[in-house]
Amino acid sequence: MQCRDNARPNLMKQEQNDRLLRALRRRETDCTPVWIMRQAGRYLPEYRAARARAGDFLTLCKTPELACEVTLQPLRRFSLDAAILFSDILTIPDAMGLGLSIEEGAGPRFARPLRSHSDIEKLPQIEPAEDLAYVMRAARLVRRELGGHAPLIGFGGSPWTLAAYMVEGGGSRDFRRAKGLLHSRPDSAHLLLEKLSAALAAYLAAQAEAGAQALMIFDTWGGQLSTADYVEFSRDYLRRVIAALKADPAAAKTPLVVFTKGGGNWLELIADTGCDAVGLDWSVPIGEARRRIGGRVALQGNLDPALLHAPREKIESEARRILAEFGDGPGHVFNLGHGIDPNTDPDKVAHLVDVVHRLSGF
Amino acid sequence: MQCRDNARPNLMKQEQNDRLLRALRRRETDCTPVWIMRQAGRYLPEYRAARARAGDFLTLCKTPELACEVTLQPLRRFSLDAAILFSDILTIPDAMGLGLSIEEGAGPRFARPLRSHSDIEKLPQIEPAEDLAYVMRAARLVRRELGGHAPLIGFGGSPWTLAAYMVEGGGSRDFRRAKGLLHSRPDSAHLLLEKLSAALAAYLAAQAEAGAQALMIFDTWGGQLSTADYVEFSRDYLRRVIAALKADPAAAKTPLVVFTKGGGNWLELIADTGCDAVGLDWSVPIGEARRRIGGRVALQGNLDPALLHAPREKIESEARRILAEFGDGPGHVFNLGHGIDPNTDPDKVAHLVDVVHRLSGF
Repeated sequence: MQCRDNARPNLMKQEQNDRLLRALRRRETDCTPVWIMRQAGRYLPEYRAARARAGDFLTLCKTPELACEVTLQPLRRFSLDAAILFSDILTIPDAMGLGLSIEEGAGPRFARPLRSHSDIEKLPQIEPAEDLAYVMRAARLVRRELGGHAPLIGFGGSPWTLAAYMVEGGGSRDFRRAKGLLHSRPDSAHLLLEKLSAALAAYLAAQAEAGAQALMIFDTWGGQLSTADYVEFSRDYLRRVIAALKADPAAAKTPLVVFTKGGGNWLELIADTGCDAVGLDWSVPIGEARRRIGGRVALQGNLDPALLHAPREKIESEARRILAEFGDGPGHVFNLGHGIDPNTDPDKVAHLVDVVHRLSGF
Repeated sequence: MQCRDNARPNLMKQEQNDRLLRALRRRETDCTPVWIMRQAGRYLPEYRAARARAGDFLTLCKTPELACEVTLQPLRRFSLDAAILFSDILTIPDAMGLGLSIEEGAGPRFARPLRSHSDIEKLPQIEPAEDLAYVMRAARLVRRELGGHAPLIGFGGSPWTLAAYMVEGGGSRDFRRAKGLLHSRPDSAHLLLEKLSAALAAYLAAQAEAGAQALMIFDTWGGQLSTADYVEFSRDYLRRVIAALKADPAAAKTPLVVFTKGGGNWLELIADTGCDAVGLDWSVPIGEARRRIGGRVALQGNLDPALLHAPREKIESEARRILAEFGDGPGHVFNLGHGIDPNTDPDKVAHLVDVVHRLSGF
């Protein structure tokens, strides 16, 4: 069977494409589904134009029509098997009152970072359907526009990753302040992580309710922790969030991916969170990952984004290598190991997507 | 046998301490040697005073008397089993003409980053004994001042790590430009890595000649690469450098440590470089590392620096856990898994050093 062509400019005419959802549930697909982390982003001229119209990144996130538009842009260009809602992992702390600003390239900053136990005690619990209504509205719009052409992925940051940003006040090379808190004030750290876990579970459930058909948790800074701290301060809260989702009527059947950057040492621990799939960065050979956890979860990944700067033949040979390393049978969602480089040539992305479909079609 | 007390304010009165060198050669020691990555640094008030006198970080590195002074400062306070020369991994590109400046906290910048193949072709080969004479002079001073109290460690950055900084023009969250070069212009990348390998081998040999009794290569950004790229662009050049050192009369018998941050997936590949010891970041359990490569090399590490913010009892229990995980027998150098946090309380360092000696003395 040949892989179906789903590169139609008019999304509404497309037949149903459920490859991603089938693969996340480890069911057979006609070819390996593929999407690209940060596929709606600066490497696309039409994204840069939309961002210029919005004025800044956060306005783009917070204006449902614009967020919907940029979410769909890459699907108009490429035969992608999923849309991922255009948003940011830091919407939760922003809704909690920390005052987020994002300068693209420079990273996020909070006007009011957490500086004391009392700051953490005072953090309000949020009601995502209201406090993050702009996200739900964007999700509903995208879902309607997609019309079954591809499933919509919703997402959020892991409790530890959100906590790390909130304590630092922004990004950091080593998150020393946040990691210091784990050991100097474990009571504060656990209180913060509990609050964030409740907020994240409610947020992801609300996205599922609003139309997200798959969910992903980005544990971007999990890899900054030692193994013991990863278990105590990140993994255990991921489990808590996932258990809440699996008990939620809207989200219980929505497949969920956990991505811990730098988590190659902990694949078994991650698979043990209750997730349906594990996202892999580029540092773990996917064949090894499949041997270790492929009996329990689907795998998503893991081409190094830097490879998209290589000549077309090299991109093809690397895609072939990853598909061969994963091997036969269902449960693979092709993706990059991290977000796409803003300097990437969009033609290279088109080539990658086509190559994955062609090489895996059977 | 009790662990000998080597915490003497007057270094010259100290008896010989060769614990570190014995452990790196996997020979028996009276207790586990310990030193601290960035032990001469901002957490020490006397360091901050010296840096203020120098005016800036690079002047401190380039003034042998001041570099010697700050190298010795932590050994006057703590019972450390090694001194590490106060310097920076970017001295080589600076000597090659890239114009290094270092703002402490913000990281390094090059005035003239590499922007083309021709920039790489034009890079001069350096003669470390002349072009980096200030480093050799500092090493000779420190060695004389130490008088056998503790061995002196010399160091440099791995070819890939130096290349990454030189191509980016400074630090980076993801080294996209440098990683892009590996795939868009592999010929340029290999030419650069060849030049840097020759320079690094000559530099480390010159440090050994000037008095360094152990050597360490910091592959700080190795963990940014995929496994295949790590082998091609970092590991293979580490092997080349180490082969050159093992053929050099001054350096052949000088034990050499390779530290790849984020290299937990590749311990076997790192051990295979020909090094005598492998430095571990905090993400790999040291017991697992010993099972995987402990039959071939010594291990250095791997307490998470964030643990130094914990109460004294937690520091003790974590040190005990690491020592127990490594287990009996020689070949362990206790250290942090990365550089010490500038906000660390020096009393916690004193506590850690004493605890390691006490718990491992036999």
